[in-house]
Amino acid sequence: LLSKQPAKGKDKLPIYMGEVGPVWLYPEGQLDCVVADPKKGTKMYGLKSYIEYQVTPSTTNRPVNHRYKHFDWLYERLLDKFGSAIPIPSLPDKQVTGRFEEEFIKMRMERLQGWMTRMCRHPIVSYSEVFQLFVSYKDEKDWKTGKRKAEKDETVGVMIFSTIEPEAPDLDLVEVEQKCEMFSRFTKAMDDGVKDLLTVGQEHWKRCTGPLPKEYQRIGKAFQNLSSVFNSSGYQGEATLTDALTAAGKTYEEIAQMVAEQPKKDLHFLMETNNEYKGLLGCFPDTIGVHKAAIEKVKEADKLVATSKITPQDKVTMAKRISTMSYSLQAEMNHFHSNRIYDYNRVMQLYLEEQVKFYETIAEKLKQAQSQFVTM
Amino acid sequence: LLSKQPAKGKDKLPIYMGEVGPVWLYPEGQLDCVVADPKKGTKMYGLKSYIEYQVTPSTTNRPVNHRYKHFDWLYERLLDKFGSAIPIPSLPDKQVTGRFEEEFIKMRMERLQGWMTRMCRHPIVSYSEVFQLFVSYKDEKDWKTGKRKAEKDETVGVMIFSTIEPEAPDLDLVEVEQKCEMFSRFTKAMDDGVKDLLTVGQEHWKRCTGPLPKEYQRIGKAFQNLSSVFNSSGYQGEATLTDALTAAGKTYEEIAQMVAEQPKKDLHFLMETNNEYKGLLGCFPDTIGVHKAAIEKVKEADKLVATSKITPQDKVTMAKRISTMSYSLQAEMNHFHSNRIYDYNRVMQLYLEEQVKFYETIAEKLKQAQSQFVTM
Repeated sequence: LLSKQPAKGKDKLPIYMGEVGPVWLYPEGQLDCVVADPKKGTKMYGLKSYIEYQVTPSTTNRPVNHRYKHFDWLYERLLDKFGSAIPIPSLPDKQVTGRFEEEFIKMRMERLQGWMTRMCRHPIVSYSEVFQLFVSYKDEKDWKTGKRKAEKDETVGVMIFSTIEPEAPDLDLVEVEQKCEMFSRFTKAMDDGVKDLLTVGQEHWKRCTGPLPKEYQRIGKAFQNLSSVFNSSGYQGEATLTDALTAAGKTYEEIAQMVAEQPKKDLHFLMETNNEYKGLLGCFPDTIGVHKAAIEKVKEADKLVATSKITPQDKVTMAKRISTMSYSLQAEMNHFHSNRIYDYNRVMQLYLEEQVKFYETIAEKLKQAQSQFVTM
Repeated sequence: LLSKQPAKGKDKLPIYMGEVGPVWLYPEGQLDCVVADPKKGTKMYGLKSYIEYQVTPSTTNRPVNHRYKHFDWLYERLLDKFGSAIPIPSLPDKQVTGRFEEEFIKMRMERLQGWMTRMCRHPIVSYSEVFQLFVSYKDEKDWKTGKRKAEKDETVGVMIFSTIEPEAPDLDLVEVEQKCEMFSRFTKAMDDGVKDLLTVGQEHWKRCTGPLPKEYQRIGKAFQNLSSVFNSSGYQGEATLTDALTAAGKTYEEIAQMVAEQPKKDLHFLMETNNEYKGLLGCFPDTIGVHKAAIEKVKEADKLVATSKITPQDKVTMAKRISTMSYSLQAEMNHFHSNRIYDYNRVMQLYLEEQVKFYETIAEKLKQAQSQFVTM
């Protein structure tokens, strides 16, 4: 596991010491991709149909077309190649029924966009040959050739560590273990936190789209009902009151609708972001598992040397490798943290901004309704 | 039923034709009463204790003390004397257990105040001898004498109609019946409307004090939980995010509390007003019943004259009496309508005003929380 031959000179992945610790080499310009314009295509004389999405990278600004199964192919390549070192989140679920329904296509596109954005943000993934091929192949032939080449790539699995070159002194095993333990605890705790928020969010969503608007509707109806009773009184000069009561009733019906539609405007994005993180965090146990297994191996190294299973030189190599793995894990965690801070700042701002608008609009509507009643 | 001797010259209750139809004679100044300052008193060397309320009428501005059972005595007198013509709403419920608990005393006082205010607003009730005695007796002796006198009052039940003097030509039976039918339909419809609003309000109250704040609390906890997980990341420079997330979480906990406390600030008054109207409307079937029975008697008059059970002169008297009853009912309905318009305008304004404040405060708090997140 530890003693494979190093990769060729090119494709080296350097790690630098940044302010926050080990970091990947971040490219100057941030790659961006827009996934848009889903179109139905057909194959085999119309016997088979599929949805094709347009993927436009900021580098070439030239759109290429991809079906879901191409994304899936890319996912498999990235998982094979980087999975031991970098958590590659799953694609949005495969789905068989309702594949051509507008709502589903929109949701899948939104999620593919989210996935692509996350991949684009990763300095190692986004600048890998296979990813570049996916977003900027020139023509069908280019795509086919590139695909074949990618499928033959031998730098997969733990081989990735042999291409990583930390520009820092080797770490000792104690520190490697400490870091690993810390990341393990953190990702587990965050996984729990994210799942908790998702559960709470789902229940809130249900309430906001179910019983709560029904209740506001009933309040609205009760006011309007009373208004029409008052209207039948035969008493002169209560039109102002009945109009105001009707308006108040209608306002509560409007609020009911606002309540029901609100989750799509704010909770949705909070949920999507947390769902993405749930997926990402689900990859960490494997990545950390590879790391922990390697640590155990290194711990046994002395025994293996004693029983001549490996040479003393092998032991040195193993120590160097585990150090590299740890730098890689640290760089990846630092990447994760900086993205996490960015994402949660952004989604919380968006959520609260929409919530503020929501409550302000309700207050505004009620103020309007209130103004129709007269002080006597 | 119809042919009782007319009352003495004094204590006549005139009805005038106003803009809206027949109306009672409204006095110049509106009587007002403040019920306040409940105090525990004892009797029989401390063996019996009771709560005494201070009642201060705007006329004398001199407080008198009354126990609940005195209010009950007044209620019985008013019901006896005016009940056939004027709906006298019941007092707040008698209660045996928890009579000395602060919460109960406060609520009972609030309701006694509501009842007194309604009685004060009624031109006939508020200026009656017994009511005036209740709010402005001079001393214990005055009260005792007045009580005895009131209990001996013979102008009770349907006798009240003999004291009413409409200053308008007699109505024919068709019109009397039409009006009666209309009032019957209206009070029934309003009773339904009020009960519907009360049911909806009760359910809303339950939700606002039960599951809803719990949910906001859970959202708040989930944010704070995530914040403390983030805090354990060991990553440099995310204090702004974790502080902001904690603040957002606390904001939702505050919102939870606001939601739970809000019904007391707005829904409470809407419910109390509707409860009062429910009580008031519950008196109408009796009042209208007396009226309908009288109509039936008048309808039979021809037959009664034919069989010499009554004289033709009696028939004329009966027709005059039913006209008076109808004027009385109309004056009472017009009184009810004008009060209803006033009360519903007032309570809806109050309700919406507090609702506006509530939503504005939430928006303000969330805006504050939002401002702590940074755009990157």
